[in-house]
Amino acid sequence: MTAQVPRGLAGVVVTETVLGDVRGREGFYHYREYSAVELAANRSFEDVWHLMLFGALPSAEESVAFAGRVAGLRGLPDEVRAALPTIARASVASGPMAGLRTALSLVGAAEGFRPVYDLTADERRDDALLAGAVVPTLLAALYRLGQGLEPVEPRADLGHAANYLYMLSGQEPVPAHARAVERYLISTIDHGFNASTFTGRVIASTGADVAACLVGGIAALSGPLHGGAPSRALDTLDAIGTPDRIQAWVRERVLAGDRIMGFGHPVYRTEDPRSRMLREIATGFGGPLAEFAVEVERQVEAILAELKPGRELHTNVEFYAGVVMEQCGLPRAMFTPTFAVARVVGWTANILEQAADSKIIRPAARYVGPPPPVPVPAA
Amino acid sequence: MTAQVPRGLAGVVVTETVLGDVRGREGFYHYREYSAVELAANRSFEDVWHLMLFGALPSAEESVAFAGRVAGLRGLPDEVRAALPTIARASVASGPMAGLRTALSLVGAAEGFRPVYDLTADERRDDALLAGAVVPTLLAALYRLGQGLEPVEPRADLGHAANYLYMLSGQEPVPAHARAVERYLISTIDHGFNASTFTGRVIASTGADVAACLVGGIAALSGPLHGGAPSRALDTLDAIGTPDRIQAWVRERVLAGDRIMGFGHPVYRTEDPRSRMLREIATGFGGPLAEFAVEVERQVEAILAELKPGRELHTNVEFYAGVVMEQCGLPRAMFTPTFAVARVVGWTANILEQAADSKIIRPAARYVGPPPPVPVPAA
Repeated sequence: MTAQVPRGLAGVVVTETVLGDVRGREGFYHYREYSAVELAANRSFEDVWHLMLFGALPSAEESVAFAGRVAGLRGLPDEVRAALPTIARASVASGPMAGLRTALSLVGAAEGFRPVYDLTADERRDDALLAGAVVPTLLAALYRLGQGLEPVEPRADLGHAANYLYMLSGQEPVPAHARAVERYLISTIDHGFNASTFTGRVIASTGADVAACLVGGIAALSGPLHGGAPSRALDTLDAIGTPDRIQAWVRERVLAGDRIMGFGHPVYRTEDPRSRMLREIATGFGGPLAEFAVEVERQVEAILAELKPGRELHTNVEFYAGVVMEQCGLPRAMFTPTFAVARVVGWTANILEQAADSKIIRPAARYVGPPPPVPVPAA
Repeated sequence: MTAQVPRGLAGVVVTETVLGDVRGREGFYHYREYSAVELAANRSFEDVWHLMLFGALPSAEESVAFAGRVAGLRGLPDEVRAALPTIARASVASGPMAGLRTALSLVGAAEGFRPVYDLTADERRDDALLAGAVVPTLLAALYRLGQGLEPVEPRADLGHAANYLYMLSGQEPVPAHARAVERYLISTIDHGFNASTFTGRVIASTGADVAACLVGGIAALSGPLHGGAPSRALDTLDAIGTPDRIQAWVRERVLAGDRIMGFGHPVYRTEDPRSRMLREIATGFGGPLAEFAVEVERQVEAILAELKPGRELHTNVEFYAGVVMEQCGLPRAMFTPTFAVARVVGWTANILEQAADSKIIRPAARYVGPPPPVPVPAA
């Protein structure tokens, strides 16, 4: 009746998917049949969103219509608007992921999201699009309220990434920054069957509503072992400080057995393709931070190859993501939440795929405590 | 590298546990080394809570101290108090589980819950106890606000179950009702490795905070395939109406292939031990509803044995849980949320057990779409 499987379900195939995959040995990942990095180079965030939720890239006409449709969904329900100052105040102690978790849960409640199995495929997708559209609005509003600033209303004439940057700062971003963040967002929409995606699918398998599934995904992404913190790699650059200190700083930590933040990935055995793309963007902008990052990467990879031979430790997505977001003026506290702006699209695609199934995901545990029943002592 | 396993991970052992187990063939389930039903007969909710979180039933002295400690945690942070009217208004459309999901998320934010891996075992348990203590307060307040009533402050001199009933109605419950609900709550604290418990453990495995894990559990429990609705069995009794209509009503539905709500369980192949306990409580109270329920059970089991021979379909926990909660004056809309009052204790015990591990739960999916990379067409 029971099957023993690897710890953490590593490598255990839970489901089939047509949404994409990661090929760790090749340094390649894809959304449906397209290279994710190629999509990021050539299409808008909205086009890739369409690909994920409708199964195909939009035609030129569909592209305009879809971008307009999701731009029209960026506003917030009144109850959510009313509660955001309180949520922002409450999440000062716990951070923006706890705020987003709460606020998106409230959006689902206010919008009356219903169990996925009670909805048609179109109705489920409507909920999924709305949730994806409001995440940047929620995050930007919570961020500004936390800074003592008024939220900035979304602008329907800006693309998804540009509008997010605009709502954060109140200033229309320069096109190069908007495009760099857009490419980053596209590249992080999905990435195999990670813990947050899996969480969303387990919740979807119970028939719960789309917001319930997404709240679980956000909760999982907030875990340091998963969402991590792209800001940590930047903190490492700050801690090293200058190129002449790289050797001593890194050797000391590696010899002490510490991980160097921004290096190593559980799946990639070669360069992380996201890292390569983000390095190009960072060096394209240029400046001392990008130059320093490249030098740190060069020296750290050499030190790791010397001290940990055969481990194939390279920069991961966090390393240059932090550099690019800093170059584009994103506040460090918003690095992980910005990841959620992209990933919510991947989660919703996975939730819709799971909801087309109807089998609850319910594994087992092996009881290893003292054998029952021991008589219950009187109180 | 990959293992093929049954759909929905059925029977796949994800972890070892000392918290309990369900023996479906024997009609027996246990918390740690004790029969759950025997615990419900002999101990207080708080004693069993202590058992689950500390690993042992409390001594007489510890019992008093622990009950006092959790009673002292029932109050809500100011931000949560301030936001509850808005959350209650927003969740009119989506129901109390969406309200609880949002409100408990906000509690975690306001209390500054930190990632479980950053905390000591004692600190994690503090968060777990606080979360378990506030769930009844949140639910009762949301319910009353939804009815246009003021929330009722918790009373530290009442036990967990009695205080919950008191906060819902504003009236101190008669001891027999409080005790009946307490036994029901004890019997639903945990029940093997169900979808919500698993969700909480997946989120915990990322290192996320206790509220993040619980929000995921609530989200999964809100799914109709999991939390179901104990009110549905009662709705069935209402729909049948009178004993003379049982035969025609039930036969028609069974022959049409419909499920009869309150009958059948994925694990039990014999009587659900919770059902047996709750039947005793219901018939102990007596009255027309209990008598009618017993008659419906008798006739439905006979009809199912005749029309679906060999299937062993018996009443499940929902059937008499609905009857008992109705007898004790709980509003039907609160039946599933009341389940959460109990289950949050089981979730927290599982989260603490998972947090003592440090391996992320991250299974895999098999890509079955068109082979990539297909060149990305220009926009």
